[in-house]
Amino acid sequence: MPNIKGNAVIGQSGGPTCVINESLVGAILESAKYEEIGHMYGARHGLEGLLTSDLIDLTAETPETLERVARTPSAALGSVRKKATEEDCKELIDVFKAHDIRYFFYIGGNDTAETAHIVDELARGEDYDFRVCHIPKTIDNDLRETDHCPGYGSAARFVALALMGDNLDNAALKGVKIDVIMGRHAGFLTGASALARQAETDGPHLIYLPEVAFDEERFIDDVAACLDDIGRCVIAVSEGISRPDGSPVFTSGEKDSHGNIQLSGTGALGDYLSNLVKDKVSAASRVRADTLGYMQRCFPGIRSEVDAAEARAAGAFAVKSMVEGDLSSGTVCIRRTEFSGRYGSELFMTDLDKVAKYTKEMPAEFISETGNDVTAAFLDYVRPLADDLPVIGRLGQGA
Amino acid sequence: MPNIKGNAVIGQSGGPTCVINESLVGAILESAKYEEIGHMYGARHGLEGLLTSDLIDLTAETPETLERVARTPSAALGSVRKKATEEDCKELIDVFKAHDIRYFFYIGGNDTAETAHIVDELARGEDYDFRVCHIPKTIDNDLRETDHCPGYGSAARFVALALMGDNLDNAALKGVKIDVIMGRHAGFLTGASALARQAETDGPHLIYLPEVAFDEERFIDDVAACLDDIGRCVIAVSEGISRPDGSPVFTSGEKDSHGNIQLSGTGALGDYLSNLVKDKVSAASRVRADTLGYMQRCFPGIRSEVDAAEARAAGAFAVKSMVEGDLSSGTVCIRRTEFSGRYGSELFMTDLDKVAKYTKEMPAEFISETGNDVTAAFLDYVRPLADDLPVIGRLGQGA
Repeated sequence: MPNIKGNAVIGQSGGPTCVINESLVGAILESAKYEEIGHMYGARHGLEGLLTSDLIDLTAETPETLERVARTPSAALGSVRKKATEEDCKELIDVFKAHDIRYFFYIGGNDTAETAHIVDELARGEDYDFRVCHIPKTIDNDLRETDHCPGYGSAARFVALALMGDNLDNAALKGVKIDVIMGRHAGFLTGASALARQAETDGPHLIYLPEVAFDEERFIDDVAACLDDIGRCVIAVSEGISRPDGSPVFTSGEKDSHGNIQLSGTGALGDYLSNLVKDKVSAASRVRADTLGYMQRCFPGIRSEVDAAEARAAGAFAVKSMVEGDLSSGTVCIRRTEFSGRYGSELFMTDLDKVAKYTKEMPAEFISETGNDVTAAFLDYVRPLADDLPVIGRLGQGA
Repeated sequence: MPNIKGNAVIGQSGGPTCVINESLVGAILESAKYEEIGHMYGARHGLEGLLTSDLIDLTAETPETLERVARTPSAALGSVRKKATEEDCKELIDVFKAHDIRYFFYIGGNDTAETAHIVDELARGEDYDFRVCHIPKTIDNDLRETDHCPGYGSAARFVALALMGDNLDNAALKGVKIDVIMGRHAGFLTGASALARQAETDGPHLIYLPEVAFDEERFIDDVAACLDDIGRCVIAVSEGISRPDGSPVFTSGEKDSHGNIQLSGTGALGDYLSNLVKDKVSAASRVRADTLGYMQRCFPGIRSEVDAAEARAAGAFAVKSMVEGDLSSGTVCIRRTEFSGRYGSELFMTDLDKVAKYTKEMPAEFISETGNDVTAAFLDYVRPLADDLPVIGRLGQGA
């Protein structure tokens, strides 16, 4: 397949992460290496900016600005939660033609991959010669085909640190503490809370994942047993936990244009579980709930450098593959490699339709048989992604 | 006053902070310098451990352990929320006599200072020759006499970073975002959110402090005006905001033994305000609330090094003052100094009864005339305490 010359456009979509700008900067810097790419435009707020030609010329940015942007959390171009209609996509092709755009890079999750896929199909139908590549990001880590997603490691690090601090807080002032963690369908982020444990009685003591039907009676018994055992209890629970019939334990009822119901941005689930413990666990005192909220995806300075490097590489790989490779479209995936027991990874491309729309859940071998914890296999999986964590200092442990 | 020889005991009380262990380690290391102090004991869970002789010998800890503990958030000895009765304090004197304890250091807030004060008065009545020193800590920054409190700067840094990330998140996906921040009576911590602003349209756009009566109509108008102006709105609100009649806007009704009502550990206030905006502000979409919760006081790695150094120094100063000085009791205070416009501080002692029980609110010159923001004077006050913050990278700003 011959290389095509023209301009490129890149956009960001879906919930931001701490390293989504690394992918953006990786793509911008890589694009400067190819004479096939004239200008690299940035679309403000993804699809929204594309449809209104709200573009900025990223070729004009200085290396200093780009490096500062790369270290800044959230989506520097702005993001969007908008499902592309066929009509939208037809308009898009017109915008691409108007700006001689032959390369389209779209950073986001599975909904974003779906948009890229629709655009790809339509462009082929219109016989417009161009290339489209999805660059993955999601703190939920719920994309198929890839070992893990850029953005996940940094969010996992935030959650691990938050639970590490919260476990110490709970050890200092005993009680029951519930922490609600993001993750709509997949428990990868909630499971990462287990990285907080460094000593036998460290929390989280109980972990509830969306993959396991949430049974209130079982939950109450678990908390009571933990209190009986160590006199305190730290609980990590996914915002996406569902009842045995599949309905969410708690939801505001609000939906976005992809049909996703709002789970984040409210303390309702935490407060619901907190009241449940207050009412049903007689030994419980000082019951508190925190919802970790949007800080999980956009806290400045808390990021995994492993994740940041992979996010940067994914952006660069997308550009390189579309310019030099023989695919007209695709999505970037990560393959885990190991050498002498040390973590490593490499990138590869796969078809958009294998990732678009679908979500991935935690595999059974990552969930404990008891259903209220993760396994050692999961910890082996997540530990290198979240990067080294601080070692907790403790008194009275002997020499 | 002659120096007295004997053992010392130290305890931690009240809500933990990220640097309360710095004060602990500062006191332990300083105590090793004096032959007047034999053993330095640590009381587990403050008053609780003192009353049950649950003590550990801190003299036995290695420097490596102590330095690791100093960098670890939360109270390494465990904490307590227990108001000392006269009966408790009489028992305490017996414990002190049994262990030949002549120095008592108690790290905590104004309730802790009150306990230290009661113990001091009783010991004098019993004619037991000993010295008691309160070492301040509180993220609320609500102690009198001192310019600011150890623990505040680190929490202020956390809040500033959280709002910085959240403002970027809100800029990427527009809407109304409410962040509920700790601070029962004083708005110092909520006000620190203003440090997140680096550009003209950066949030937080509205700040509600406990010092200003919260008027719902006014709040609704403020949010509507902000949306009209910039199409989005980030709001920092104290958990302690009260209605014009003085009652809290939202509370669970639960109280601790000091009579403090539970404000933290629930998302109820955020959800209440969120629903208010959804119902009353017609232009509002995507309304979300997060309660920053316990992460504000115990997040590993997020601390101000200025605060950490002052906390360490406060612990050391307490020991030095009690051994070398001519006071039998006191509380450590910080005085701000400046040299060529650069921030500096020095420590001094004052009487326990000047700090015990009382709380300090934000002075009028720190609150904007509009009542929904802080002033430049407040930013000058808080900026050096929170330490340097990262610079936000932005695209499309021109060369």
